[in-house]
Amino acid sequence: MTSEITAAAPADLLERFRDGKRTALARAISIVEDARPGFERILHELFGDMGRAHRIGITGPPGAGKSTLTSKLALHLRQAEERIGIVAVDPSSPFTGGALLGDRIRMNNISTDPGIFIRSMATRGHLGGLATTTKEVADLIDAFGYDRVILETVGVGQSELEIAGTADTSVVVLVPESGDSIQAMKAGLMEVADIFVINKADRPGADRLAQEIEVMLHMRLGDMPQNAGHHGVSLKSVQKAAREGVQAAAEQGGGWAIPVLKTVAQTGEGLEELARTLDRHRVYLEETGELSRRRQARLAERVRAVVERRLRRLVWLRGPGEGILADELAALEAGQVSPYAVADRIVNELGLGPAGGMQS
Amino acid sequence: MTSEITAAAPADLLERFRDGKRTALARAISIVEDARPGFERILHELFGDMGRAHRIGITGPPGAGKSTLTSKLALHLRQAEERIGIVAVDPSSPFTGGALLGDRIRMNNISTDPGIFIRSMATRGHLGGLATTTKEVADLIDAFGYDRVILETVGVGQSELEIAGTADTSVVVLVPESGDSIQAMKAGLMEVADIFVINKADRPGADRLAQEIEVMLHMRLGDMPQNAGHHGVSLKSVQKAAREGVQAAAEQGGGWAIPVLKTVAQTGEGLEELARTLDRHRVYLEETGELSRRRQARLAERVRAVVERRLRRLVWLRGPGEGILADELAALEAGQVSPYAVADRIVNELGLGPAGGMQS
Repeated sequence: MTSEITAAAPADLLERFRDGKRTALARAISIVEDARPGFERILHELFGDMGRAHRIGITGPPGAGKSTLTSKLALHLRQAEERIGIVAVDPSSPFTGGALLGDRIRMNNISTDPGIFIRSMATRGHLGGLATTTKEVADLIDAFGYDRVILETVGVGQSELEIAGTADTSVVVLVPESGDSIQAMKAGLMEVADIFVINKADRPGADRLAQEIEVMLHMRLGDMPQNAGHHGVSLKSVQKAAREGVQAAAEQGGGWAIPVLKTVAQTGEGLEELARTLDRHRVYLEETGELSRRRQARLAERVRAVVERRLRRLVWLRGPGEGILADELAALEAGQVSPYAVADRIVNELGLGPAGGMQS
Repeated sequence: MTSEITAAAPADLLERFRDGKRTALARAISIVEDARPGFERILHELFGDMGRAHRIGITGPPGAGKSTLTSKLALHLRQAEERIGIVAVDPSSPFTGGALLGDRIRMNNISTDPGIFIRSMATRGHLGGLATTTKEVADLIDAFGYDRVILETVGVGQSELEIAGTADTSVVVLVPESGDSIQAMKAGLMEVADIFVINKADRPGADRLAQEIEVMLHMRLGDMPQNAGHHGVSLKSVQKAAREGVQAAAEQGGGWAIPVLKTVAQTGEGLEELARTLDRHRVYLEETGELSRRRQARLAERVRAVVERRLRRLVWLRGPGEGILADELAALEAGQVSPYAVADRIVNELGLGPAGGMQS
């Protein structure tokens, strides 16, 4: 342990946390979310208890039914006495009207079950970045002893995809009718998906979407069969070849053939298979060493994020940053001084030497 | 000017830039985008030439036809001999298939016009953050003398909304049929919009979407008329009251009544009115002092982003960060050391003292 860990440990809180008091978990989360004094100390102390839960990311475009799927999945997993934590990342806008309110009501229906812990993240005001804070909240739920932590985010922006993409298993939820507008989203989503779910699969277009995704998955493997070139081949034959290609490649290489499942979350249809597939993916992760690889990447990323958060806090909360900025604002607006020169002044004030200067 | 601006100025490049050579603009953009040595120096030197262009953000969900609208708008503005810069932020995924390729082809049709400058941003590998780099590219185009800089982004993630939201005028583009999936997006989009455009307005549902947006805009103003309570009032009367309320409030307060326009970008329908509305917004910004307020906020934000980018480069590119992290990775994965302790080591190595420690 390094010498710089000097904050007073919130010993009482940690003791109650380890005793399994939900109020202690809730309080620890609040301290971490608000970055209150000692918040990193809590995460540091509990680090040894983390890494046991299966982390599931559930992401996809708005309107795909992610919240319903999440709560129904949680209820399904509860049947096997599993303890489930849910972290939902909502846009904290004053205009979050009907849709999100509906989500919260659905969430409330399951929030009376002591085996389910739900936390909704505010999406504003995270000096350390929303993604990092959200993952740290998941860490706490993990350390508390929940068997699964489900991270639900809108899967369309950089930060939002990052949150889901760093889960052990990332589930991308789409809906049939999204059509065109989904098209461009798929790019980013395609990269994070371990499992695709087509929700609202009782609506028209579900089969077609499933086939499209399978074609895309195949193209990603880059081993299009000989008879399925660019010209003169029907979509159907490409689709068939694609499915076979994906399966074959995955089986030959010992890889994970990304499944495309169908659900109707409202009625519970397909949830059993989703739960089985989640378990199968976890076994795959463990047996192939992929779990260890993912967790290592996650830890390295965490170190980077924590260092950057400290530097930000150092310059803006404790340091000279805001003062110098306020001094220079009029000159900046008058065009007398550039933002880069003001940044020079601030970085120099930190005593890091010329290495922080404009030539970098 | 501070003493730390010591990098050799790329004098030749700056000279050619100021002489109006497009190759110099393109090269300056590449240097800034790749953060090559001296990139901040270029931005610093050109700072005095920035701030004259009208910056227009065009954002909205995938599939809303933003690229088509952008290119058609550019062509329309060209009729008045204006010089137009376009910065498009594409998801740089290996899977950007049909839709985005189509966009690029449409873009190419206008890229032969010397009065239009188009640049597409890679969305990966920006140590300084995609949003900051994109805005710096817009700065260069501004400094080069273009009359308008159009920033086109997918309006669904934090970074993406940030880019559009810091323009002088932010245009949010929606399409009628997106329905459900648009619903939740509106929250974030609603906050950045100066102008709403319903594109593909020849499709069913355009009027309904326009009315919904007007209702939301009204609720935002928080001055629902007496006869439009929660119960027993038809949607239609609320909508009518909403429109009147928004207009009345804007007129009374000298504010900007956010217009909801309809376009069919493919055919050019509605572009004339969009162009007029953009001009009207710019006049509003200038006359009310809002332009100055927005630019001041943008400059302060830029200083913060530049400082943070320097600190990141300092610790990860020049500093001890990656070395220490590599040393500790095995211990991290074994659970012997926490990410917070490793971060302590890295921050301490920077010589910033105990203020960077875990107690913060």
